[in-house]
Amino acid sequence: MKVAVMGAGAVGCYYGGLLARAVRGAGHDVTLIARPAHVEAIQRTGLRLETQGFDERVRLHASSDPAAVAGADLVLFSVKSGATEQAGAQIKPHLKPGALLLCLQNGVDNAERLRAVLPKHNVAAAVVYVATEMAGPGHVKHHGRGELVIEPSAAAVAPALIAAGIAVEVNDNVRGALWAKLILNCAYNALSAITRRPYGVMVQGAGVQDVMADLVAECLAVASADGVVIPGGKAATEAAVRRIAETMPGQYSSTAQDLMRGKLSEIDHLNGYVARRGAALGVPTPVNRALWTLVKLLENQGQETQVTA
Amino acid sequence: MKVAVMGAGAVGCYYGGLLARAVRGAGHDVTLIARPAHVEAIQRTGLRLETQGFDERVRLHASSDPAAVAGADLVLFSVKSGATEQAGAQIKPHLKPGALLLCLQNGVDNAERLRAVLPKHNVAAAVVYVATEMAGPGHVKHHGRGELVIEPSAAAVAPALIAAGIAVEVNDNVRGALWAKLILNCAYNALSAITRRPYGVMVQGAGVQDVMADLVAECLAVASADGVVIPGGKAATEAAVRRIAETMPGQYSSTAQDLMRGKLSEIDHLNGYVARRGAALGVPTPVNRALWTLVKLLENQGQETQVTA
Repeated sequence: MKVAVMGAGAVGCYYGGLLARAVRGAGHDVTLIARPAHVEAIQRTGLRLETQGFDERVRLHASSDPAAVAGADLVLFSVKSGATEQAGAQIKPHLKPGALLLCLQNGVDNAERLRAVLPKHNVAAAVVYVATEMAGPGHVKHHGRGELVIEPSAAAVAPALIAAGIAVEVNDNVRGALWAKLILNCAYNALSAITRRPYGVMVQGAGVQDVMADLVAECLAVASADGVVIPGGKAATEAAVRRIAETMPGQYSSTAQDLMRGKLSEIDHLNGYVARRGAALGVPTPVNRALWTLVKLLENQGQETQVTA
Repeated sequence: MKVAVMGAGAVGCYYGGLLARAVRGAGHDVTLIARPAHVEAIQRTGLRLETQGFDERVRLHASSDPAAVAGADLVLFSVKSGATEQAGAQIKPHLKPGALLLCLQNGVDNAERLRAVLPKHNVAAAVVYVATEMAGPGHVKHHGRGELVIEPSAAAVAPALIAAGIAVEVNDNVRGALWAKLILNCAYNALSAITRRPYGVMVQGAGVQDVMADLVAECLAVASADGVVIPGGKAATEAAVRRIAETMPGQYSSTAQDLMRGKLSEIDHLNGYVARRGAALGVPTPVNRALWTLVKLLENQGQETQVTA
């Protein structure tokens, strides 16, 4: 199978690397489309794929040119949520007819938005449960998990993914599972980013449990108004929210990491999405809107010097 | 008249300085009870009182001992809201019977809380409209305004204040006026503190107007449930909120300044008060509660080193 990864950050490099490595040397023909620093390192020495089980250099193609999707049967689409439309337009003229695009992204509407850009292609959503990071140029580090939940329209690639060591579940409620993950992100990401606190310390702050409960309740109300069925409902969601701080007390949210590095965050597709969707559906989301507003102001601060009055 | 200023920061030094200076040299006998650094400077060279109209050294007494309230007919009480009970207890054994205590503080319940500590004394609330800062040890700088609105129970000292050049209004709805000021603080202080932005830039952020409208609406609902009559009602409050950013675009809130200096803020008596009062009265205040929660987490951060993940 010919595979391309569009937007190969930590998530894309991990899955692309597993597919290229595959089992007993019978890997797939994988091309990572990534930032130039990663491309250069990967072309020179391969992708360094470091997991708890192995640490290998995987040989695959790398390019910073979106045209490198040409010929791919499967495109793992893993750009940041804010770049979906633009990246879709960049690869559009080069896609093989009949190619399957699998969105490995946060946020709940990326597949929908990509379908609008690529109406003639098969675009499927996936929920990604993995902890990875780019530890350096061309070096992806895997910290845990790795399962994918994919839509039935992508079921044809499940055997290849499974053969490459990826746990895959085909499920007809990917939208509900994406929302469940969105709610966890809404509960933690902005709070951790604004307060620059890891989860374990953060949840012990005065009032934090109440604020998280407000965030979750607003999300559930919007999901319900939008016809989304969250797996396990309210009780499962609240239990999952509690578990995050218990199992990852030292973790800073990706939004916190983005702000600390002076980068734009995905907040428009987390609390910002819930606020926009709530406004469209007539469901009040005052706390999600407030946290989105705060993160946007902090985000735009960039590397600006702090001025005291 | 013998006057003491308990908690002589910028506000207390300004009014105490005006009373000591008074007109044509006929000043009052004023004692500032302040932090040692200010006391030392004031004892050495007097209080430097710098206004747009004059820049003078005013001779008055200064002490860091709360017992220095002894003999005062009027005590200007200007400690931070969080210190009201403690400071009240410190001066209690030394107060002259019949002394009037005038609270020159932010927050709406300081006089009430001070009365609980000093049930036998005459405690009156005031609303303070002044922009001042301590520009150095023993040096208070006046940036604008200076009016006081005081309760009828303090009317007896109005002539002396007016004679010292202080604009005074006696009003039987000081509580409403304190709430009106509280609402302005709730709309601006936490947002400016969390985002480290001056008002003019802050109000232009995406969503900020909506968040401020939510904050104000929650405050008005709590005030109404608490039987408070805000002068001018909703329309006047919203107009006053808009005016702040227009007239003070470069201003950082006092809460922002406290956080930048690693100091505790008065947030418990601003958004925190509204959240507590709302909870007691059954009025939801999700946005005030969220901002209070965030400021508390940032406040406790103190001078801690920022750790990146």
